[in-house]
Amino acid sequence: MPHYTLNYDIIQDAVIKKRKEKRIFLDYASITPLDKEVKKEMDKVQEKFWGNPSSLHTEGEKANHKLEESRIKIARILHCRANEIFFTSGGTEAINLAILGVIKASKERLPHIICSTIEHPAVLELIKNLINEKKTEVSFISPDGRGIINPKSVKKEIKENTILIIIQHANNEIGTIQPIREIVKIIRNSNFATRNSYPYFLVDACQSALYEDISIERLGADLLILDGVKMYGPRGAGILISKHNLRISPVIFGGGQERGLRSGTENVANAAGLAKALELAVGKREKEIKRLTKLRDWTIKKMLNKIPNSSLNGDSKKRLPNNINICLSQGDTLGKFPKVSPWDSEFLVIKLDTLGFAVSSASACHALSNKSDSYVIEALNPKCANSSLRITFGRDTKKSDLDKFISVLKKVIK
Amino acid sequence: MPHYTLNYDIIQDAVIKKRKEKRIFLDYASITPLDKEVKKEMDKVQEKFWGNPSSLHTEGEKANHKLEESRIKIARILHCRANEIFFTSGGTEAINLAILGVIKASKERLPHIICSTIEHPAVLELIKNLINEKKTEVSFISPDGRGIINPKSVKKEIKENTILIIIQHANNEIGTIQPIREIVKIIRNSNFATRNSYPYFLVDACQSALYEDISIERLGADLLILDGVKMYGPRGAGILISKHNLRISPVIFGGGQERGLRSGTENVANAAGLAKALELAVGKREKEIKRLTKLRDWTIKKMLNKIPNSSLNGDSKKRLPNNINICLSQGDTLGKFPKVSPWDSEFLVIKLDTLGFAVSSASACHALSNKSDSYVIEALNPKCANSSLRITFGRDTKKSDLDKFISVLKKVIK
Repeated sequence: MPHYTLNYDIIQDAVIKKRKEKRIFLDYASITPLDKEVKKEMDKVQEKFWGNPSSLHTEGEKANHKLEESRIKIARILHCRANEIFFTSGGTEAINLAILGVIKASKERLPHIICSTIEHPAVLELIKNLINEKKTEVSFISPDGRGIINPKSVKKEIKENTILIIIQHANNEIGTIQPIREIVKIIRNSNFATRNSYPYFLVDACQSALYEDISIERLGADLLILDGVKMYGPRGAGILISKHNLRISPVIFGGGQERGLRSGTENVANAAGLAKALELAVGKREKEIKRLTKLRDWTIKKMLNKIPNSSLNGDSKKRLPNNINICLSQGDTLGKFPKVSPWDSEFLVIKLDTLGFAVSSASACHALSNKSDSYVIEALNPKCANSSLRITFGRDTKKSDLDKFISVLKKVIK
Repeated sequence: MPHYTLNYDIIQDAVIKKRKEKRIFLDYASITPLDKEVKKEMDKVQEKFWGNPSSLHTEGEKANHKLEESRIKIARILHCRANEIFFTSGGTEAINLAILGVIKASKERLPHIICSTIEHPAVLELIKNLINEKKTEVSFISPDGRGIINPKSVKKEIKENTILIIIQHANNEIGTIQPIREIVKIIRNSNFATRNSYPYFLVDACQSALYEDISIERLGADLLILDGVKMYGPRGAGILISKHNLRISPVIFGGGQERGLRSGTENVANAAGLAKALELAVGKREKEIKRLTKLRDWTIKKMLNKIPNSSLNGDSKKRLPNNINICLSQGDTLGKFPKVSPWDSEFLVIKLDTLGFAVSSASACHALSNKSDSYVIEALNPKCANSSLRITFGRDTKKSDLDKFISVLKKVIK
C-alpha cells in the first residue's frame, strides 16, 4: 500500500504530548495486541524448544514434538485432522498459498474462480495479477446493499471449469458475516461435487476467528485461513487448513517442511502461540459476543442519534459484535480542492488521532482503492466511500471509552 | 523433507535420562539459539510498537517508524539503501522471492539461470520445479573436489538470455566459501553488463552472515539473502536485499506492504530483532573468527589423527571458521541389509545423540537427497556421501567440548 508521508517529527511531537493521556484504541480489526498468556507460552517454548524441527537429534526432535503438539491442539479446536493444518507466515501468505496452490495443482487449461467483490486485498490483488497473466478467469459476486452475498448468485456462476469459490467469513471493514453454510449447501446440491472435489470452497476466517464458530466441520469449507495478528496471537503467523485429498501444490520450495507444502525452518514458538491464542479465543468467545454485541448496538444507536445524516454501513444484525462502520455524510465534497470535507475519512482519522482515539477509514490494507478510501463501501454505497469510519472493539473496550468517543466525534464534525 | 518416524516415547525417555547431563550442541549451522539481547530488544519493541504499521493513527505510525528505523540500521550494516531491504518470513521465502520475482519480471521468453549444484534446497528444489514447468532453462555448475566454484566455469555458461546467476556465499554443509568477488568481476568483464542489468547475481549469505563480510557493496551482488535463525536472531525472519532499479515482481500479493514486493502485516519485532542480531554479529565477528578458526583447525587435526581412514570434506582454508565436515570411511557398506555400517551418517548422529552430542549427517533440509544422506558431499566425493558428519560450532563452543566429542566419536566407530 502507499505509505502516507506524514511528517515523523510532528507525529513524534504529538506522541510526546499525549504520553500522559490515556489513548483509546478502537481499531482492533487492523491488529490486536499480543495476549500476555500467549506471550508467556511463546517465551517458554522459545526457551526450551529452540532446535530445528528437521534435525535428527534430541534438540530437533523436541522442537518437532512441540510443533506437532501445537498442530494437534489446533486441530482439536478447529475440528480437523492435524495433518490438514499448515503453518504459514500470516493470513496473506496462507491466502496466496491456497489460491495459487489450488490453481497450480488443477489440470484445467484455464481454471475458473468465483469470488466476492469485497474480499480482502490478499485475495483481490492476487486475482487481479492472475487475470493479467491469463492464468485464470474469474466471476465476481457483488454483495447486496447490506454487504451480504446471496448464495444463489454464487450457484449461478458455477461452470464446468470452476475449481475454487472464495467467500470471506466476515468482512474486515464492515464486519458483515456471510451465510457460509448456506453457500456450501447450495454448491454441494447444485453439483455432483462432494467435499474434496471441485469446486473447492475457500473461507477467509481471519476476521471472524474471535467471534464466530470456525469449526471447519460445521462451516463445511475445504480451505480455511486464520491469522495470529487478528486474534491476540503471534505476528507473522498464519494457518491454512486444507482438507485431506485436496489437490494443492506448494508455492515456496525448499527443505520440504509442512509436508512439502510450505518450506522454510518452522517457527515453533509461533505455532505454540497460535494454539494458545485459539484456545483463549474459544474460551472467551461466548462471553465476549454477549458483551460486545450489547456495546455495539448501544453505540450504533447513540451515534445515529447524535450525528445528523449518519447511517450504518453493512447489515445491523449479521455483523461481527466488535464492528461498527458508520457513514457520516452521504455525498462527500472530496475533490473540490482545497476544501476538505469535515466528513472526509482520512481527515477524520488523523483529527481523532490527535485527540487520543485510534480508529480507521478503511482496512489498513487497501491498496486497491485508488478512487476512494474504501472499495468495500464503494461496492455497497458509493456515496459513503470517502466519508465513513470503522470503529472496532477489543477485549479492553469499555462503554465509557465509546461514550467519550461519540462526544468527541460529534464535536469534530459539527 | 521426509520426517523421520522416530518413536517419540523412546526419544522422550532418552530426554528424561539426559536431563541432568550437560548436552553438547555442535549443530549451529542448522539453527542458532535466540540471543538474549536480541530477545530483550524484540520484547521491548513488541510491547511498545504493537500497532499495524499500515494504520494512519499514532499506534500505526509508531510501529511504522520502528520498522523503518530497523531497516535503516540494517542498511548501514550491509552498506545498501534502506529501500533496498525487504523483510520476509525467512531465508527460504527470500530465496524463492528473489528467483521467482526476477523470472516473473523478465521479458525473456525462456529465461536462463546459472547456479551451482551445491546450493541450498531452497534454490535447487525451486529450480527443479521451474524446469518441470518449462519456465526456465538452467545451467548447473559443479564445484571442484574441494567444493569451490571456478569463476571461469560460470563465465562459460553465460548466454544472451541469462538473467540470473546464483552462487551461495558459504555452503551450509561443508562450509566452503565461494570466491564471490572474483565471480562478480568475471561476470561484469565478460559482459556489457553493469550492476542492475542482466544477468543479476544472487548471493545466498544465510550461512556466512556471522563470519564473513556481507557488505553488499564489497561483495558486489545484486541480490543478497539473510536468515534470522542462522545468526542468533528471530525465527521466521529473513531479509532480501534487492538493489534499486532491479526488475523484480512480487510473489505474494495483498495489502502491498514492503513497497509492494511482499504483502502481509509486517512483523515489527522481528525486523528489530534482525537489526540487533546483525549488529551483534558484526561486533563479535573478528574475535569469533580468530577463536573458532583456531578451534576448527585444532579439531580437524586431532580428528584426522585419531580416526583412521578419515578425511576432511571441502577446502581446509576457504571454509567457515565454525564448520567441520568429516568423512569417516570412504566406501560405506550401506545397502547391505541388515548390516548397518558403523560409519553410516544417520546411525552415527542418533548414536552420538544418545551420548549427549548434537551433530548432523547433512543439512536439516535435504529433501533432494533420495539416494544419499548428502547431495553436497555426493557432488564432491560420492564415496563419502553416507559416511560423513557435520560438526558446527557456536558462541558457546569450547575446546573441552570438542575434546570430549572426539574421544566419544572414536569409541563409537571403533
